[in-house]
Amino acid sequence: MATGAVALQLLVLQIRAAADSDRDAIWDIFHDVVATGDTYVFDPNTSREEALAYWFREDTHTYVAEQDFVGDAVSVPGKLAASPTGQLQDRQFVGSYVLRPNRPGLGAHVSNASFIVAKSARGLGVGRAMGEHCLSEARRLGFRAMQFNFVVSTNESAVHLWQQLGFKIVGTLPGAFRHSQKGYVDVYVMFRSLVD
Amino acid sequence: MATGAVALQLLVLQIRAAADSDRDAIWDIFHDVVATGDTYVFDPNTSREEALAYWFREDTHTYVAEQDFVGDAVSVPGKLAASPTGQLQDRQFVGSYVLRPNRPGLGAHVSNASFIVAKSARGLGVGRAMGEHCLSEARRLGFRAMQFNFVVSTNESAVHLWQQLGFKIVGTLPGAFRHSQKGYVDVYVMFRSLVD
Repeated sequence: MATGAVALQLLVLQIRAAADSDRDAIWDIFHDVVATGDTYVFDPNTSREEALAYWFREDTHTYVAEQDFVGDAVSVPGKLAASPTGQLQDRQFVGSYVLRPNRPGLGAHVSNASFIVAKSARGLGVGRAMGEHCLSEARRLGFRAMQFNFVVSTNESAVHLWQQLGFKIVGTLPGAFRHSQKGYVDVYVMFRSLVD
Repeated sequence: MATGAVALQLLVLQIRAAADSDRDAIWDIFHDVVATGDTYVFDPNTSREEALAYWFREDTHTYVAEQDFVGDAVSVPGKLAASPTGQLQDRQFVGSYVLRPNRPGLGAHVSNASFIVAKSARGLGVGRAMGEHCLSEARRLGFRAMQFNFVVSTNESAVHLWQQLGFKIVGTLPGAFRHSQKGYVDVYVMFRSLVD
């Protein structure tokens, strides 16, 4: 390694529409997410069938996020970008999200979305990247707003992320989530407009 | 008619679990309710199949309200109750409601309900009677709270009725209902506890 260079890993996140062949990978993450019973409304014992039926529901757009590990890289002082030292070595499935109308008929102009991130990829900005992608997709599909119906209040990193992406808490449901450790905790309804 | 007596109709409201044979009557009311596009989230063109699938969903308790018209009656001054002058003449189907968990799994302790009342029976207290019956059923089934996800803010009689039955507005969804006359109007999330 050149003197003064910093060792890096070059990771590239790709978000694309889900295919049937993604079902196993989605189920792995989904199961991991609900197993702890502290952030998601689904029962920790939700079956693969139920989970995938929900994730690929007829009215639903399903997306997946993959991380390509391009290889080690060196950052050379005085150069702006890192230079990869290798070819694509590994593709890892790191998350998925769904986007759908929150209500039928006369409420269908408001979208709803749900996100899952693999444990191994937490804290890397995957949730934020999917959130931004999701807002852009929702606009493209003509939705006028986005609503999260069930953000567990103790899931502070999620609440904070959605606030950073422009969502406001528009409602508080007292004790509406049965937290595996904390008992009944409040749930937020969060909302943001997609039109000016 | 005795002098000083007031002409009355004696009506008795009965609320019971729905049977398959109620499907036609439920669809008639449901269709009437959604047709105006001013109170209910369902598209005015919702099909019979969609409506009944929702109303008889697997996780759902379905009830109907029937009004027995016992006949004309006279209220005699100095007597507490009206006296029927005839036998049961007519049974009319006046409403229906559904009661279900609002969420699966770790949110399933909060119930949700929806109500429809026949046009011909509006203003007679059918909604209130079904609401009270529903709260009692929800308690009996062990729910800890009840949540309405989508009370159209301009439907003032509904908002007022639910407030009288102990519900509070816990959230406001900006412009979440596309009202047939008024355009995009706010929607309330209403909530009440069923435990002390």
